Amino acid sequence: MEGAREQVSDTNDTLGIDDLPIRDELKGKSPYGAPQLDVPVQLNTNENPYPLPEPLVARIAERVAEAARGLNRYPDRDAVELRTELARYLTRTGKHPVAMANVWAANGSNEVLQQLLQTFGGPGRTAIGFEPSYSMHALIARGTGTGWISGPRNEDFTIDLEAARQAIAENAPDVVFVTSPNNPTGTAVEAETVLALYEAAQAAKPSLVVVDEAYVEFSHRDSLLPLIEGRPNLVVSRTMSKAFGAAGLRLGYLAAHPAVVDAVQLVRLPYHLSAVTQATALAALEHTDTLLGYVEQLKAERDRLVGELRAIGYEVTESDANFVQFGRFDGAEGSHAAWRKILDRGVLVRDNGVPGWLRVTAGTPEENDAFLDAVRELKKEQDA
Amino acid sequence: MEGAREQVSDTNDTLGIDDLPIRDELKGKSPYGAPQLDVPVQLNTNENPYPLPEPLVARIAERVAEAARGLNRYPDRDAVELRTELARYLTRTGKHPVAMANVWAANGSNEVLQQLLQTFGGPGRTAIGFEPSYSMHALIARGTGTGWISGPRNEDFTIDLEAARQAIAENAPDVVFVTSPNNPTGTAVEAETVLALYEAAQAAKPSLVVVDEAYVEFSHRDSLLPLIEGRPNLVVSRTMSKAFGAAGLRLGYLAAHPAVVDAVQLVRLPYHLSAVTQATALAALEHTDTLLGYVEQLKAERDRLVGELRAIGYEVTESDANFVQFGRFDGAEGSHAAWRKILDRGVLVRDNGVPGWLRVTAGTPEENDAFLDAVRELKKEQDA
Repeated sequence: MEGAREQVSDTNDTLGIDDLPIRDELKGKSPYGAPQLDVPVQLNTNENPYPLPEPLVARIAERVAEAARGLNRYPDRDAVELRTELARYLTRTGKHPVAMANVWAANGSNEVLQQLLQTFGGPGRTAIGFEPSYSMHALIARGTGTGWISGPRNEDFTIDLEAARQAIAENAPDVVFVTSPNNPTGTAVEAETVLALYEAAQAAKPSLVVVDEAYVEFSHRDSLLPLIEGRPNLVVSRTMSKAFGAAGLRLGYLAAHPAVVDAVQLVRLPYHLSAVTQATALAALEHTDTLLGYVEQLKAERDRLVGELRAIGYEVTESDANFVQFGRFDGAEGSHAAWRKILDRGVLVRDNGVPGWLRVTAGTPEENDAFLDAVRELKKEQDA
Repeated sequence: MEGAREQVSDTNDTLGIDDLPIRDELKGKSPYGAPQLDVPVQLNTNENPYPLPEPLVARIAERVAEAARGLNRYPDRDAVELRTELARYLTRTGKHPVAMANVWAANGSNEVLQQLLQTFGGPGRTAIGFEPSYSMHALIARGTGTGWISGPRNEDFTIDLEAARQAIAENAPDVVFVTSPNNPTGTAVEAETVLALYEAAQAAKPSLVVVDEAYVEFSHRDSLLPLIEGRPNLVVSRTMSKAFGAAGLRLGYLAAHPAVVDAVQLVRLPYHLSAVTQATALAALEHTDTLLGYVEQLKAERDRLVGELRAIGYEVTESDANFVQFGRFDGAEGSHAAWRKILDRGVLVRDNGVPGWLRVTAGTPEENDAFLDAVRELKKEQDA
């Protein structure tokens, strides 16, 4: 049978997705995902360019081997050790003490957000985000049957507080997303703004406010973690994908009132977090100091990108993240043409569909130099 | 701050789940999960009692270390290598050639089923299962907003084909679950029965028929995998938790027409399957022959359990799985009392809420002996 394995089972291979009895709203849709092209410099998905240090790789192998010896058993369903260590990390870096009972973890912050929407959103309910923002918020809303409301932003991509408050009052959404630092634009949100939105959301419904801090370790501002104190409907979501250099691990987590942690357990799939994931994350948390050292290097490179892009003559949105939004190009067509020209020079950046703007991830100094060379040439071409 | 980490953030700690703005249908609910008690012999969650062999543990450490060196990058979103190897395994053992394009993988078969329900079920749609069966089917339906219909079974726990066809015709469900071997009762379903249900489901809607084969490697019957040929609305779901002795890994997969694989990608979270999970599963698949050797031992032990339970005087449902359903006790109270008495003898079995019956997982010969001693004493007590 060996030779048969390349044969696709089913001769009726002209059949497509839309011939199946899928949900109507999925018809004609394509899966989400950044195009992955094989180019020398990949600065398109906000990955951390620094591989994990070898001592950490060795520690991961050690802890995973230990976990593998008990792999015939289900993993710790409540991930107690991992949540304890995540709480310790947040306490140490977030200027606010949190305990295991405040923390929940899942396969990437996407799964954390999905569980929150299954619990607090879902059919007959709505969620709002202020766009452009992390596009998965709207997609996970769709996937959980939650209605999506696209809220406004200022021209400079900061949150237009008055308009946002009005949108919350008018729509009374069940879930409010605030992304800080915002993706793809890069700027962090002030605590006062989040507090004002929280109050508006409580007055309108009350609703759950989710502060998505995937990139907060790269910010000039402190984490908004202390805001969970006394606000049971405020959740801060985080990830190990960026600051911990572990996008391949898929480990997201949240901090909130313990009742929120209890609530998501009503919808989480039992044993959702594998023993190898828990073991790997625990190993990475042992090496927090080294990994946060890379974060400092990336912050310096991010600031260099901002400065040099401006010196070249681009507009740049203020960045608190490991990426930079730059422009302006002539609308959606202009930014797409620029994306293509940068790609032709071997550098892949991200066209997030924000007309006139592109997003570049802060890479290694060499990768950033290659990017800056490319956009310098592009600028000359445009000015010629 | 170190010392503060045991402090739960929030002084308002009397607040409970139902004080939060969660969905109405979740109010008053408890999370799913078998009670995990610390007893010497745990035969309650259908785990494989054999730890992975040391050469496999070493290979996992090696492959995970390799993956960890690239952990700063997102994993292969499409899990191509893993799906190729799963297809090779199915082709080899399932008496039907399948290719990578026929296979999809996720974090446990629960996540596979969740993705199927998000795509083919969801708000305004319904799913049917023939109960008692795997209770997560109903729970994942609830979690995805899919209406649940509880279909009938015969007194001997086989599917009552006429009643099942009638239930499908009357309710026209969007998704039909058939669990074979069935959990918690243990018996496999005949191909003719599945074909008849498939035809009824196509006539009524058409709807997706999901054959949950989590335990099929332990069956006296062949896998129903060949039925996917020419039936684009038939899906077979599988897991590495049982036959591969890897419940801690959380790796479930499905085989179906390639259009089904394309369709679930509309709802899957991007990069849902971590690089460490993919690496560990690939290592386990390299050791398939050894692991299937353990399956043969467990089948022999399962048959011994069936024989000895009958010799002791219990009724036993025919088992094609790595567990055995036995009874009868006097209704729900009787089976719960028996569960407690077996537990008092240091053996944890499962009370699945099937009145008059309990379920025991086939463990090692020593574990099974301990169980048989316990139920032998119990029988004597009852007969006294």
